[in-house]
Amino acid sequence: MAMAAASSLFTFSFQEGICSQKTKTCSKKFMHNYLNLTRNQLGCSMSMYLKHARSLHSEKSLILEETERLSKQNRILCRALEIENSPSFTLGNKFQLDDVIEAQQFDRDILNAIFEVARDMEKIEKKSPGSQILKGYLMATLFYEPSTRTRLSFESAMKRLGGEVLTTENAREFSSAAKGETLEDSIRTVESYSDIIVMRHFESGAAKRAAAIAGIPIINAGDGPGQHPTQALLDVYTIEREIGKLDGIKVGLVGDLANGRTVRSLAYLLAKYEDVKIYFVSPDVVKMKDDIKDYLTSMNIKWEESADLMEVASKCDVVYQTRIQRERFGERTDLYEEARGKYIVDRRVLEAMPKHAVVMHPLPRLDEITVDVDSDPRAAYFRQAKNGLYIRMALLKLLLVGW
Amino acid sequence: MAMAAASSLFTFSFQEGICSQKTKTCSKKFMHNYLNLTRNQLGCSMSMYLKHARSLHSEKSLILEETERLSKQNRILCRALEIENSPSFTLGNKFQLDDVIEAQQFDRDILNAIFEVARDMEKIEKKSPGSQILKGYLMATLFYEPSTRTRLSFESAMKRLGGEVLTTENAREFSSAAKGETLEDSIRTVESYSDIIVMRHFESGAAKRAAAIAGIPIINAGDGPGQHPTQALLDVYTIEREIGKLDGIKVGLVGDLANGRTVRSLAYLLAKYEDVKIYFVSPDVVKMKDDIKDYLTSMNIKWEESADLMEVASKCDVVYQTRIQRERFGERTDLYEEARGKYIVDRRVLEAMPKHAVVMHPLPRLDEITVDVDSDPRAAYFRQAKNGLYIRMALLKLLLVGW
Amino acid sequence: MAMAAASSLFTFSFQEGICSQKTKTCSKKFMHNYLNLTRNQLGCSMSMYLKHARSLHSEKSLILEETERLSKQNRILCRALEIENSPSFTLGNKFQLDDVIEAQQFDRDILNAIFEVARDMEKIEKKSPGSQILKGYLMATLFYEPSTRTRLSFESAMKRLGGEVLTTENAREFSSAAKGETLEDSIRTVESYSDIIVMRHFESGAAKRAAAIAGIPIINAGDGPGQHPTQALLDVYTIEREIGKLDGIKVGLVGDLANGRTVRSLAYLLAKYEDVKIYFVSPDVVKMKDDIKDYLTSMNIKWEESADLMEVASKCDVVYQTRIQRERFGERTDLYEEARGKYIVDRRVLEAMPKHAVVMHPLPRLDEITVDVDSDPRAAYFRQAKNGLYIRMALLKLLLVGW
Repeated sequence: MAMAAASSLFTFSFQEGICSQKTKTCSKKFMHNYLNLTRNQLGCSMSMYLKHARSLHSEKSLILEETERLSKQNRILCRALEIENSPSFTLGNKFQLDDVIEAQQFDRDILNAIFEVARDMEKIEKKSPGSQILKGYLMATLFYEPSTRTRLSFESAMKRLGGEVLTTENAREFSSAAKGETLEDSIRTVESYSDIIVMRHFESGAAKRAAAIAGIPIINAGDGPGQHPTQALLDVYTIEREIGKLDGIKVGLVGDLANGRTVRSLAYLLAKYEDVKIYFVSPDVVKMKDDIKDYLTSMNIKWEESADLMEVASKCDVVYQTRIQRERFGERTDLYEEARGKYIVDRRVLEAMPKHAVVMHPLPRLDEITVDVDSDPRAAYFRQAKNGLYIRMALLKLLLVGW
Repeated sequence: MAMAAASSLFTFSFQEGICSQKTKTCSKKFMHNYLNLTRNQLGCSMSMYLKHARSLHSEKSLILEETERLSKQNRILCRALEIENSPSFTLGNKFQLDDVIEAQQFDRDILNAIFEVARDMEKIEKKSPGSQILKGYLMATLFYEPSTRTRLSFESAMKRLGGEVLTTENAREFSSAAKGETLEDSIRTVESYSDIIVMRHFESGAAKRAAAIAGIPIINAGDGPGQHPTQALLDVYTIEREIGKLDGIKVGLVGDLANGRTVRSLAYLLAKYEDVKIYFVSPDVVKMKDDIKDYLTSMNIKWEESADLMEVASKCDVVYQTRIQRERFGERTDLYEEARGKYIVDRRVLEAMPKHAVVMHPLPRLDEITVDVDSDPRAAYFRQAKNGLYIRMALLKLLLVGW
Repeated sequence: MAMAAASSLFTFSFQEGICSQKTKTCSKKFMHNYLNLTRNQLGCSMSMYLKHARSLHSEKSLILEETERLSKQNRILCRALEIENSPSFTLGNKFQLDDVIEAQQFDRDILNAIFEVARDMEKIEKKSPGSQILKGYLMATLFYEPSTRTRLSFESAMKRLGGEVLTTENAREFSSAAKGETLEDSIRTVESYSDIIVMRHFESGAAKRAAAIAGIPIINAGDGPGQHPTQALLDVYTIEREIGKLDGIKVGLVGDLANGRTVRSLAYLLAKYEDVKIYFVSPDVVKMKDDIKDYLTSMNIKWEESADLMEVASKCDVVYQTRIQRERFGERTDLYEEARGKYIVDRRVLEAMPKHAVVMHPLPRLDEITVDVDSDPRAAYFRQAKNGLYIRMALLKLLLVGW
């Protein structure tokens, strides 16, 4: 399957011979393969070469010369520089994804397209346990801080599609005090062993730096207080799967709205849909910050703050509960204890909720949702975790073999 | 192979259409697949549904309603509740295994059946390195405390059968102080990524709790001072392989009999066979406890305590040596030093042993068996370790694709 | 593929029936398979048996007796004891590799042969991502100290060839203070789970001890201050790939020459080629030691020490830079700071270098090569890292399925 995929990429550019017509589907991965596979047949111009100059200086002057010679012969122009400015884009209703770095990179069409693939993945995971879509591909999980849940979800996604995994849970070693290697050098080393890198880092912006240097796709699996885009995607996907729509929904965001990056990203993505109404329900010390409120207002998204969880629950399609994070309170354990007990989703809240509504939670949960809620069909949080698998399968497929 | 297996499960219930006749082979895994695969064709009654209610509330009311509707139409009754009370059972000379939690769950027939599969596994491992019996299946090793030896044995077993593995050596993270997720929630998350969970935990009873919540099979790879059932199985299997029989054997259990869970489980399982004689040879401070002695007596198993290793060795088919565990002695290192030097299996002991007898040890060993014993063909402990691989291959096969 | 390989090994000895003519290709792995697969057809003499007596006592008297009986019948003599004295050797222009323990085991012919296979591996890695050459084989990475870079390189190599991996990053557990298992016992346990062991250890000589006990191939991935032979091989391979030859080259070794095992091994291997000239450029506190200098002199290899990096750079084909290791300086951070700043490869050095020359570095680097050098085609260090993958693919193939 992998070989077939590779050979169809090949076909597209050499049998059809119209590289200039199709630049927009020249993914980073393709170009990587292409330049590795076909040194003797290079038919694209230097502009394509230049985009990847950083990763390709490793191919040395040999390619440089061949590329120049061939491009002069063929006069085929790949407008790859154009690609650089639009990391993801649509072609008809298809699109090409180079990296997954932040929630902001996805517009409504791309989200829909990813969700369509995710639904296919549900079928694949359930019906053909031995899928070989990504056979021969190797994913490296480069985790600078541990996150077993996220790592297992990605590794399962890769293996469910027939791909293979290299695991690094202690990637900090690469840049240990004694050794002091830069992230950029580590990425260059790991990319020589793999076809795609899923990375988690303790510094905001690390994924972007990695994507800038890498010749293979990068997926951000969380970079410090920054982004965790696959969590945001799976949240939106879950709402769409559970409620059946995204336009016109009412969502209650509950708990720690100040520090939780999931609720912030979710609010951001929901703003792409129409007639959405968001309720913020949180203890005073961890209220949603103004930047998101202002953004929602600017996007014509209605929102309001409420102190009455029962009332919000009775009106919402989705109650999205989050954990109050003790570590944010330092020594003020009194404030923590006060905050964490304030808004609990229990059977009383369930009773207030409409029949079609659902309770979501990014997990892990402590006692902010009581265990007796689990048996209600509207408890969607474990299905939500499973949806993370489908979203990650979809992203891996799209990044490695395309639409 | 995996697909074939899945489709044969499907065939069994829908082409034959006699779910009620075959309930006993409706494994948990099957029901899991079945309910995932065939929501639109549900033909079994609510009783089947109810057994899995805990894991299936995740399928929400949709299934609930379909199930009710279809069960009313079809009037086919699956006596699944019956299954609940007998976690493993025989059907003719076959049996169905749902989980592997404790040595007590196995009776003589089931042990024989597992050993028969283990022998097949020996052939598969030696003759066809590329077996694909478990292709497409994903095993998660969820280790809350490290045990490299056990983990590698399970992972090798899975890979020797063509299956794939998700590894978590630091599963404590899932329930770290800061996060505090329950074991139950962690299991539900991991089961959404995998087809079977092999878990090691620091608390007695953890595996049972996991099996109660999980919709996929659980294998207990050791839970604290509690059970380590696959070790017990491989010990009995090794005796049968080495000596050729289990009825009528004489076994000397040597070393730390008070704390070693392996010797306790082994004594327990040997009681299922006839005319067995057990000798206990241990320093006074670590004698076999009364509960096992009483149990053996109640089962009409002859046993005696002896202080003379040479004499016991001369009469036994199996000398099962164990390590004196320093950590059990606290600050009484004098007692430890006295105990550990007392019963050593060396060449003198070997000379006393019958030609057909063997020395076993659960490993790791320190100096309780001297290195010069290793070269004697009767030193069975490394073969015993290898048998662990075959037993685990057999269990994985039985739990995932059945007989 | 794995099965085909196994069956051709079988063919070789039984269909042709001339074991004595071909002893030199009877690899350890073959004998392992052979004795496992064909107990009933053993046709080689006891001398073959004896070589493996240590690993085979596990097969007990059954084989012993069969072997004796058959060897008396057949009178075929395998001169396996001869093999013992030459761990690797040539047969025509082919060779058989049993283990990879130290750089000294490779002569010029064997290096050439390995490099030829490594070039094939480059093609395989680039052209057919789904190679199945090692399908069904299982490699254990037994790391007693972490080395993510080396581990990932080996694991990628194995997976690129379709093989599977068991990972142990915390192998010290096997021999933890409390448990105290010997390395030999650990190796015997792990070999029962896998087909080849890649080990990294903190003690010099550990790999040799492992190879002495193991019935399967061992690759030394670094043992303390001792050997790291695959690094030495990839360095020589890189020079040959980049410069196109090894005879007649001029190499500048720069940086910490006293402690760096890579430069010591490289100097050792370069001495096997003709007309080589080596320049040592290092701060006084970390000068190349006399043993290597004396060795080079004894091999008629010209060498000189220089304090002028610019001048050396202008004359060399290869500038091999290394990191000054802070940990070697203890509390003398003043000496460290002085040493590390002394010889930096920057654009000025590049300008002095010939057009065809390259800069190499074993990685990780700190600032001993400035980042602006990276974009020059002569910066070969990331290509060098990638060559490590090809060398390791080649070694895995040669050790597991032979030429």
